[in-house]
Formats: sequence, structure tokens, C-alpha cells
Amino acid sequence: MFPSLATPALLLDLGVAERNLEAMAARAGALGVALRPHAKTHKCVELAERQRTLGARGLTVSTLDEAEVFAEAGFDDITWAFPVAPAEATLGRVERLAERVRLGLLVDSLEALEALERLGRRLAVWIKVDCGYHRAGVDPHGELLLELGRRLAVSPVLQPAGVLTHSGHAYAARGREVLARVAEEERSVMVAAAARLRAADVPVPGVSVGSTPAMMAVDSLEGVTEARPGNYVFHDLSQVTRGAASMDDIGVSVLTTVVSCQPGARHSVVDAGALALSKDAGCGDTGMGLALDVTDRPAGTLVSLSQEHGILDRPWPVGTRLRILPNHSCLTVACFDAYDVIRDGRLTGRWGVRRVRG
Amino acid sequence: MFPSLATPALLLDLGVAERNLEAMAARAGALGVALRPHAKTHKCVELAERQRTLGARGLTVSTLDEAEVFAEAGFDDITWAFPVAPAEATLGRVERLAERVRLGLLVDSLEALEALERLGRRLAVWIKVDCGYHRAGVDPHGELLLELGRRLAVSPVLQPAGVLTHSGHAYAARGREVLARVAEEERSVMVAAAARLRAADVPVPGVSVGSTPAMMAVDSLEGVTEARPGNYVFHDLSQVTRGAASMDDIGVSVLTTVVSCQPGARHSVVDAGALALSKDAGCGDTGMGLALDVTDRPAGTLVSLSQEHGILDRPWPVGTRLRILPNHSCLTVACFDAYDVIRDGRLTGRWGVRRVRG
Repeated sequence: MFPSLATPALLLDLGVAERNLEAMAARAGALGVALRPHAKTHKCVELAERQRTLGARGLTVSTLDEAEVFAEAGFDDITWAFPVAPAEATLGRVERLAERVRLGLLVDSLEALEALERLGRRLAVWIKVDCGYHRAGVDPHGELLLELGRRLAVSPVLQPAGVLTHSGHAYAARGREVLARVAEEERSVMVAAAARLRAADVPVPGVSVGSTPAMMAVDSLEGVTEARPGNYVFHDLSQVTRGAASMDDIGVSVLTTVVSCQPGARHSVVDAGALALSKDAGCGDTGMGLALDVTDRPAGTLVSLSQEHGILDRPWPVGTRLRILPNHSCLTVACFDAYDVIRDGRLTGRWGVRRVRG
Repeated sequence: MFPSLATPALLLDLGVAERNLEAMAARAGALGVALRPHAKTHKCVELAERQRTLGARGLTVSTLDEAEVFAEAGFDDITWAFPVAPAEATLGRVERLAERVRLGLLVDSLEALEALERLGRRLAVWIKVDCGYHRAGVDPHGELLLELGRRLAVSPVLQPAGVLTHSGHAYAARGREVLARVAEEERSVMVAAAARLRAADVPVPGVSVGSTPAMMAVDSLEGVTEARPGNYVFHDLSQVTRGAASMDDIGVSVLTTVVSCQPGARHSVVDAGALALSKDAGCGDTGMGLALDVTDRPAGTLVSLSQEHGILDRPWPVGTRLRILPNHSCLTVACFDAYDVIRDGRLTGRWGVRRVRG
């Protein structure tokens, strides 16, 4: 399998990824929302360009590094979907970036809002709302939502962009019915938060929701203006476990070589470890990843990972090449500098994973 | 704390690292073995140069990428301590590298030995032995050890380098006494394996052992010629848990900023997630990492990590800067492109983390 590639290598199955991209674009269209894909999963200019061709309005990113990479590549409408740190080094980069692109920023604290205001520059600011994940974001029923909204509404420089959330708790759900319930909760919380703000005379142009599993299951997005799923380009074993995708939808895998298998042993050792797959344990009985052989048949489960070694629960002859389906494609992609792109089982090129680390 | 740095940032405390380097060099000297430090932990030319100045004989690496980086930087004696994959793309790189440096290679299978022999080039080959970790390596009591030894002894091109092992099971041990027992087992197994080979007329110039916790605890390395610890340059919370280091010995940390803390919440959110710390869960009750405040006082435990978010079990004002001590320094370092180097609490420079990913 791909003898010209040194292992471990990150394989991108372009046919699968393109099908996933088209399906989500169609889904967003059917639900009547704009799609602003989260590029944190693929970190890849070529894939972002395909998303744009399919009608994506702009991009979502997680880090300023990603924002800078995509700005450099010509994307001019980027939401940094992470609470802005009111820190000198961060704000300097925000300022420089905002000169080049339409930059959406998130706040869920007065400290961050005031720091942005002190920059004295026109910036589009979203209020991050907690729709049930309880990680970050303001309480949709609390006072801080209204206070942030009012401050934005009267700001001479900041522009209210609307309310934004991430239904990260959809990642703990299992089965399409439960996912659909989480997604509807996200929608209704956000629509209600927008209504509270509007009742207080705060303009709410956008209502933005996120997460691939919620998008795969949701029945209606009435009142929502845009969605920001990211993982859907590749999916992974965790999405399959939670019922948001099937095995055939997984668009990335790690090519590996069996490097050790002792006489009589019931395991073998492959050259894909934590530095190739991450230590994400997934959310089902998929170990640290599932192996496929050259004919795509199941070839074992990775039972543990150390830095560069993976332990497979089956013996395979030394030199055997396998592909590992990852538990979490976002973290696996982040382990590599580049994709080896395949289409119909043939290598067709090499695309960069554009990540500055940390 | 370091307002000029955008977070997350990888801080290297050079005073601590230099003390760790000196202590291990002294320890190897007292034990009468050569030190061949494993560079997989630091991936840093400047630190490898300090190890060389302190008398290290050569370097150990885990990947061909690392071998190529250090060869380029002028290190001419490198052991690639990972079983060679008998795969075309790998062997081509091995050949090119062996033209430039004295390259030590590992085999634990006939397939790999025969693939190396077919290259027709003088190569130093170690036999990897399983000293109790049961991951890779030949059974020290089995036939394959002797067969590999005899094949090396008569090979017209390959040169027997000796026997090599990694006591990875020391990572599961707790307390200096247990660590010392594991280390003594490693030593005695390897000395016996060498004796078996020598009795079969196989030259065994080197007996090489590894792992920081074993080196920190071992009483004698009689019969061993070299040691290959790596983690000791930085240690980490896992080494502290297992009793191989103290908190003051930890030489790297991740600078982070609190980006969200809601009114009344008992947690806060920092901008160091799985992409800054890895998802290594450690081996004690250190959560996903421990936070220190600006005065180095305990500031909470990271209870969970998602891709870019870390959840801390204490509320801190938005904008607060903290340092996170990592569970596993090797994987944390691999998340970054560079160290921000500090000495006596002051920033003094920036050194590259030389990693090609995967």
C-alpha cells in the first residue's frame, strides 16, 4: 500500500471528503442557514477553497495562527471562534489581522469587551452564549448577556455581530434522536437569547450555532442564521460511535507499517503512536484507533499508544502496511505537516496541514 | 507574566534544564556508563549541544526525521532507537543518512535484518531485546536472539553493535525502590542476553539500556556500556508521581491565559488545550496538568482538555496568566514549534523544537 510513502503518513481520501463537503453544503441549504465551516479540522487551504466553491460564506478558526494562515491565502471573512484573551500580545495580532480581513471576534466577559474597545477600531463582536455545554459562554438567562449586549449596542467602535454558541455537549450524546434533542436545545436557547437582547434594543444580526453531530441530526434551524460545523469534512470513529456518520464517511486515515511482531505473540507493533494519532481515547470501543488492511477489511484494534509505537491486538508480519482510522480526526490531522491525497485508491498529491503549533 | 508572549507558549526554564543535564551526566559517570541521551524529548539542537559538551557520546532519536535534523546540525553519531521498517521509503532514507553519520539501527526480526542486508552497506545493527516491557524486542531466552546474532556475526556488510532495550515498564512503577528493582531486572536481563550471544561466538560490543526513571533509581549498571534516558532534561508530573523527580526539577511549562470565567462559576477556561498539552492523562492525580500562578503557587488542576480549551477547577479573572506543568513533557514539547527560553524568570531567547510531524 503506497510503497513510496514513508510511514506514518496522513492519507486524505478526496472522494470521501468531497462527498462530505457536498452533503453538508446541501444540508445547510435545506435548513436555510449559511455555512461557515470550521477550518480547525482540516487546516488546509485546498479544502477551504472547496468549501468556498460550495457556497460557504466565510471560515471559522480556533486560533490566531489559523486566522493568519487563511487570511494569507486570500480568505477575507474569518470568525475566530475562541474567547479573545485581553492580553497585549493577542490584541496586537488581532489589530493587524483586522486591517486585512473582516474578522469576527468572541467575547463572554466585560474584561475582553473593554480590551477590544480600547483598540478603537471597528470590529465585529459576537457574544458567546452557553447553550448547555457549560465550558465557556455567558448564561443565556443571566444579566451578563444583556450587559455585554448593551455595551456593544452603544459602543462607538465595536459592532454587535450577534450571538454564537458551540454545542460541545453534542459530543457526549449517542444516537441521532439524542443528538437531535441536543441540537434543538441549542437552537431554542440561542433564539431565546437573541430575543432577550432584541427586547433590550440590542441589534442581533447573527445567530450562529456549531458542531457536526448537531448539524447531522437537527430537524429545524428556525431563527438561526449560520452554522459552523468542522469535523464533517473527515468525520472519525467518534462520530460513527455517536451515530453522526458511518464508517464509509471517514475521510482521513494514518498509513502505518508493522515494525515488530515476535514469534508466538498475539500482538504486533506499528509505527503510528501518540505523535501520529494523538492520545484521544474516543468515545466507544474503538481502542486508540481501528486498523484496516490493504483491502479495507478490519485488521485489529490499537490497544495502546506510546510516543511513536502503537500496539495492535493482532499479530501481523513485519513490513505489513495498514491504515488506522482515527478516534478524533481533528487531533490526528494536527499531528502532521501534510496530507498525502488519494482518489480512487491512487496517490494524487500532497497538501499542507497549515498549523502553527500550540 | 511575560506580556510580550502570545499564549499558549512553551516555556523552557534553562536553569532547571541545565541542572538536570549535569545531574544525569554525573550519574552516568558514577555508574560507569556512556550517556547517549534520547533527543525525542527536547528535539532541540541547543540542548543536544549542551549534552555533548557534558560528555554525551552521541544521540538517540525515535524517528528518521529527528535523525535527519540532528545530522544536519552536525551530530555524527546517532542511534535510531526504533525497529527499522523493511519498507522501501524507509530504507532509502536510512541509506542516505548512513552516508553522512555513524547510524545505529535496531532490529528484532529477520525481515528487518534481511532488508538491511540487501542494502549492501556497512551498518551498525543493534538487536532489540525485550527486558520485560513486552512491547517490541526479542525474547532474551528465545531462539530468535541467537539467530539474529549469528546472522549479524557472519554478515559481510552488517556489523553487530550489541543488545539494546528500553525498560518502558519502569513508567508503570511507583517509588524509588520499585524503580530500582525494574532497573536491576533490565540490567540483569541484558547482561544475560549478551552472555548468551557471546557464548554463541557473537560479538557484543555494546549493552544499551534506557528510560529516565530506571536511571534515576538504579544502583549498579555492571555489564552495561551505555544508557539512553531522554525525559530527564525536563522531567514532568508523571516522573514526580513515580518518584523519579521532584516538582522543582520540571523544566518546561505552558504559559496560558484565562479566557473565560463566568459570574458564580467554580471553574475557568484557559487557552491551553489538547493542542498545547497533548491528551496524556498522566499517572497520578494531576488531572491533565497542574497550574501555577505568577508566584509559582498552586493555582488549580486542569480537569479536562478539548482541542484549544482547558478547564481549570478554580475561577480566575479573565486575563490572568498561569503556567501549566505538563503530565508528559515529551508530548507537550511536540505540540510546539519553539521554546521561549527563560533564565531566572527572564525571557532570554527562542529555540526551535525541531520536529517533522507524525
